[in-house]
Amino acid sequence: MKVLLLNAGSSSLKFELMEMKNEKVLIKGVCEKIGSEQSFVKWQTCEDNNVKEKDIELKSHRDAFYFIKNLIFDEALGYLKNPGDISAIGHRVVHGGKYFKSAQPIDDEVLRDIQELTELAPLHNQASLDVIFLCCEFFGRGILQVAVFDTSFYFNMPPKSYMYGIPYKYYEKYGIRKYGFHGTSHNFVSQECAKMLNRNLQDLKIISCHLGNGCSITAIDKGKAIDTSMGFTPLDGIIMGTRCGSLDSSVVTFIEEKESLLPKEVNEILNRESGLLGISGISNDDREIIKAIEKGNKRAILAHEMMDYQIIKYIGAYSAAMNGLDALIFTAGIGENQWVHRETVCENLSFMGIRIDKGVNKEKILGKTGEISDKESKIRVFVIATNEELMIARETVKCLRIKEQGE
Amino acid sequence: MKVLLLNAGSSSLKFELMEMKNEKVLIKGVCEKIGSEQSFVKWQTCEDNNVKEKDIELKSHRDAFYFIKNLIFDEALGYLKNPGDISAIGHRVVHGGKYFKSAQPIDDEVLRDIQELTELAPLHNQASLDVIFLCCEFFGRGILQVAVFDTSFYFNMPPKSYMYGIPYKYYEKYGIRKYGFHGTSHNFVSQECAKMLNRNLQDLKIISCHLGNGCSITAIDKGKAIDTSMGFTPLDGIIMGTRCGSLDSSVVTFIEEKESLLPKEVNEILNRESGLLGISGISNDDREIIKAIEKGNKRAILAHEMMDYQIIKYIGAYSAAMNGLDALIFTAGIGENQWVHRETVCENLSFMGIRIDKGVNKEKILGKTGEISDKESKIRVFVIATNEELMIARETVKCLRIKEQGE
Repeated sequence: MKVLLLNAGSSSLKFELMEMKNEKVLIKGVCEKIGSEQSFVKWQTCEDNNVKEKDIELKSHRDAFYFIKNLIFDEALGYLKNPGDISAIGHRVVHGGKYFKSAQPIDDEVLRDIQELTELAPLHNQASLDVIFLCCEFFGRGILQVAVFDTSFYFNMPPKSYMYGIPYKYYEKYGIRKYGFHGTSHNFVSQECAKMLNRNLQDLKIISCHLGNGCSITAIDKGKAIDTSMGFTPLDGIIMGTRCGSLDSSVVTFIEEKESLLPKEVNEILNRESGLLGISGISNDDREIIKAIEKGNKRAILAHEMMDYQIIKYIGAYSAAMNGLDALIFTAGIGENQWVHRETVCENLSFMGIRIDKGVNKEKILGKTGEISDKESKIRVFVIATNEELMIARETVKCLRIKEQGE
Repeated sequence: MKVLLLNAGSSSLKFELMEMKNEKVLIKGVCEKIGSEQSFVKWQTCEDNNVKEKDIELKSHRDAFYFIKNLIFDEALGYLKNPGDISAIGHRVVHGGKYFKSAQPIDDEVLRDIQELTELAPLHNQASLDVIFLCCEFFGRGILQVAVFDTSFYFNMPPKSYMYGIPYKYYEKYGIRKYGFHGTSHNFVSQECAKMLNRNLQDLKIISCHLGNGCSITAIDKGKAIDTSMGFTPLDGIIMGTRCGSLDSSVVTFIEEKESLLPKEVNEILNRESGLLGISGISNDDREIIKAIEKGNKRAILAHEMMDYQIIKYIGAYSAAMNGLDALIFTAGIGENQWVHRETVCENLSFMGIRIDKGVNKEKILGKTGEISDKESKIRVFVIATNEELMIARETVKCLRIKEQGE
């Protein structure tokens, strides 16, 4: 049984074709910079570890979708012959708002709700909708399409975590609250962590640090997310590649007034010109920041110090929120590869009884995962490779099974 | 030696006349709602514990100042006969920005800097300036006036604490950074705490929770503030009486766009209509919230839960920031009186080894202060009455001594 996984961003479309019998990825890739003249596609197959890359004009998600279609149905590769060879399609949808506490088979009602939620995630949810319609167009309406939401993992957060201290009417009128993101990733790594500990998730207090170009830190108590650093949008929390993270709200209005900016203009600055890029003036890429640090660049050093310090504070805050901590997880691009952050963070949490093996920590890069805490550590610390696509695939198959049972 | 202490708010003026020989308050009071038709004065003398109150039209800080002048020079009270009976005047000034790391004798240069900083604290700093000039007018330019800044205690915070993840140019151009407030209070209670522990501040890691109508939580390592919950302005941090505390910045721009508000209008909502008032819809006064909770009001319960939960997270975060904690302090109106917050917060931090004596905790209200942790507690917990005026008076006398030595 083969499942196609699609993850539409505002100007990107990731894809993966997975054989579910053994959860093997047959082909995967990404279309980047859709809508710009620099658009290109990168992909790789299970037979060949070499990444192929092609510059090609992709004016829209439609162009990207049909490029991917041609690729996965390529006769020479021989993965698929007919549209019917795909059993189901799983979509990552960023915003499920108040509607979706779990993955959903997509029908007209679900589409309407996702449409309604575009207000909360204008670029992402619209891109997902576009791609869902393209799948209808090519595969027909008979195929099962499943929406897996970034926000579902946070559906049961308590109000004390998700409410903001603003007039209550804004919650009622616009749904302004903390929604949380990267839920699929945090859900996946917390499950993996329980397996590695050979314990039941129900018995564990976990903090997972998803540190990529976007960063979020989530407190998971008994398998349920009870708080997270991203909020109403993915802008809040710790400093990220280009996003500012937490600010005094007065900073927003102060900059608007001083620079005569519109709300959407300042929002653009906070989302795209801030974070590691804004502080360092060098790059949003942590690897470039590290190179600059090695040359003694002060603002690069500051950017790193800010990131580590904010991670440390979130781990302290969420340990307090759960009144304890059993395991700490690092995942995603920075979390899985930049051992220096892990070392700094963990060394500054020795008061909690966290101790890591520095040597082992340095080895856990480039997909090598596992435990980095030493035997004396009161809290177990892990590097775990996230796999949102696998999680989406599993959720999709779950929906397929339910559908089959119903028929 | 008598010292006059003045604390000017945007529409208020607090005063205290203190005999420094024994640090005794001779008379103290406050002019409220200056500039409105509801203006009034409340005061009390050391001979008479009864609070006197008088409704009187106070069109400006000038009216308030001269009312106070007449009161403290009242012949029947007999505290003062001539202007020269006052040795020095201490002013609380909210914003000392990047200029003032300690209390300053006010001269033309200091005045220019306070003036320049009105941009960062428009209402407060201007009110202080007005009152300083009124003192010059009445007492003459010969009298020593001292400015004690709310921000000075935070002067040595590390950049990783005070920088925001926004483009660096905004720090350079406008001084956008975390400044911190309530510094005089946190400084005072941390010194008192060290005395109560009979230990040196240099050896202590302290978190102090100043919980009043405005709330701030400060991490104090070796006597120095290394981080604090209020930021560029007093808007950030935990939920307060009418201030929102920490938000996803996107919430600010979202509300502006949806409600067609100007930056200053949304800022007004976040400062004056949010917080406990905005969530509960009842009051900004914690005592009213507690009454509503007793009647089962759900939004009042939520407001309290949010406040306690956010305090808990800050204590966790700052313990992590200092990699340890020796003492926790509660102070100011809510901190000194609302034992229920202290109980909830401390009970949820048992993982850190915090244990309080619930009975003792309930007794520490209405000015009764002292330790509330029990003998088993790894972290000592105190209720300490703050006294910003006393701190300002001591700083003022310190400046007076330096001046006298110089002459």
